[in-house]
Amino acid sequence: MDTTQPSGILSPAVTAFTGQLEIDEGRTVAHFQWLLQQGCDALVVFGTTSEANSLSVTERTSFLEYAVSNGIDPRKLLPGTGCCSLPDSVVLSKHAIGLGCPGVLMLPPFYYKAVSDEGLFRYFANLIERVGDDRLRIYLYHIPPVSQVGISFELIERLTTEFPGVVIGIKDSSGDWEHTRQLIDRFAPGGFRVFPGNEMHLLPALRAGGKGCISAFANINPALLQEVFQKWQKPEAESLQEEVERQGRVARKYPLIPALKAILAESRKDPEWENMRPPLVALSSARREGLLAELGTGR
Amino acid sequence: MDTTQPSGILSPAVTAFTGQLEIDEGRTVAHFQWLLQQGCDALVVFGTTSEANSLSVTERTSFLEYAVSNGIDPRKLLPGTGCCSLPDSVVLSKHAIGLGCPGVLMLPPFYYKAVSDEGLFRYFANLIERVGDDRLRIYLYHIPPVSQVGISFELIERLTTEFPGVVIGIKDSSGDWEHTRQLIDRFAPGGFRVFPGNEMHLLPALRAGGKGCISAFANINPALLQEVFQKWQKPEAESLQEEVERQGRVARKYPLIPALKAILAESRKDPEWENMRPPLVALSSARREGLLAELGTGR
Repeated sequence: MDTTQPSGILSPAVTAFTGQLEIDEGRTVAHFQWLLQQGCDALVVFGTTSEANSLSVTERTSFLEYAVSNGIDPRKLLPGTGCCSLPDSVVLSKHAIGLGCPGVLMLPPFYYKAVSDEGLFRYFANLIERVGDDRLRIYLYHIPPVSQVGISFELIERLTTEFPGVVIGIKDSSGDWEHTRQLIDRFAPGGFRVFPGNEMHLLPALRAGGKGCISAFANINPALLQEVFQKWQKPEAESLQEEVERQGRVARKYPLIPALKAILAESRKDPEWENMRPPLVALSSARREGLLAELGTGR
Repeated sequence: MDTTQPSGILSPAVTAFTGQLEIDEGRTVAHFQWLLQQGCDALVVFGTTSEANSLSVTERTSFLEYAVSNGIDPRKLLPGTGCCSLPDSVVLSKHAIGLGCPGVLMLPPFYYKAVSDEGLFRYFANLIERVGDDRLRIYLYHIPPVSQVGISFELIERLTTEFPGVVIGIKDSSGDWEHTRQLIDRFAPGGFRVFPGNEMHLLPALRAGGKGCISAFANINPALLQEVFQKWQKPEAESLQEEVERQGRVARKYPLIPALKAILAESRKDPEWENMRPPLVALSSARREGLLAELGTGR
């Protein structure tokens, strides 16, 4: 068992922006610290929820350096590094590994659609060769509702066979429990680390042999998710998971990132948390109030 | 009438790569020269066909400088500059305008799906403000089959109203003639420059009030397209357009970029033309032969 790799509750951490839409480094790092204190086992910086694709490569490397030099342990970070362009993905992956991060989360190149598994295989193979660092560990990022380009079982089979110990896991944000279950059944026995990208599937994934979850929801209630993780083999796990699902269902009625930022703005009493880069926009005040009312003040 | 803006046959020029998958600058510029000699009125560098999203920002700026300092007139170039990340789009747009290009072709940010027109409007508005150059001219790039994020009529209305003389045209790669026709009917009378992204619609677009076409097909047979453009008001235009459509229908049975590169490799007797960055892959030899046989040797 590789103890350097994170398990449990991973938060795809949101990025704070200033009013001028630049990364607010201090506020983002304070959020990271809160997430780790609240029980996140690790943080996925630069995921979908982080608005990573709305950032330039330089913004990403420079912010990561800021976070690490301001007290965030790089061993707790799995940066997203997959871009449409291979050179960008290489730069970001090399940089993250060089900083001491245990692995990277990689989107497939997502501009061209209906691409072949052969083309995606070559993309990852080329990346691994160009990074050329034995420390590289890759988590594949399957999120077809957004990227439209997915990671097939055949591709995972081929990548794990050709690059054992390098391609070591996946975040499954298909939102489809049956897909996650099949992934776990097929690949977890070989040591492949499967994380559903949805808190709705946290308990079932742990029971089936998954490693935890990487869920946007962990930005707002990581302690509750950590409690499910700690108690998953106990009877009370069911009712904890039910509360996770209740809150998750409410949040998912709204555009996800604006909803998370509205909740953070409310709980931090800091309206600047609602800044986001276009094409995303903040919730209207009516929708924000509806969301907060539905979630309840008992949070 | 703004005579600095291109009309007629624009080629979204393909990019040549070396065996190591780096941009082959010399071979690409030689292709640009051939395209201009064969009758292209201008070149869209860094479009979908150019594998632009598979290139880093630095590769794009550095290649553009190479092309201009190696004899390509920047007034003949409309570089694609739209990226998921606003800072990247700003850097590329500033750079292109600074080099003397008459305009830029802008994809909307394409990672997040189902985004609002408000979010897209803010993206373009923010870009125009950040570029801060009176010379900026934007052609919107509507290509929902690939980007999945499109440009609605309402968005065009708002952008052309708020930024008259800046947002001046569109490449419509919907592939849907009815959509192109409606765009022309609604916006061309106000001076908006509409280019279908499909050679199949060249003649109908010219007759309706479009400005020409920006078609991948112009990489392989620009002279034929130019002949349609020159003669569109004459009786022989019909039969010329029919030949365009015949060749276009054959090429479109195959994955577009691999097909174009296979045709270039064959006509230049240079197999290196089939190099492309993953996730794209070259046609199998069987499919390549099928394509070339179907197109006929009479080209």
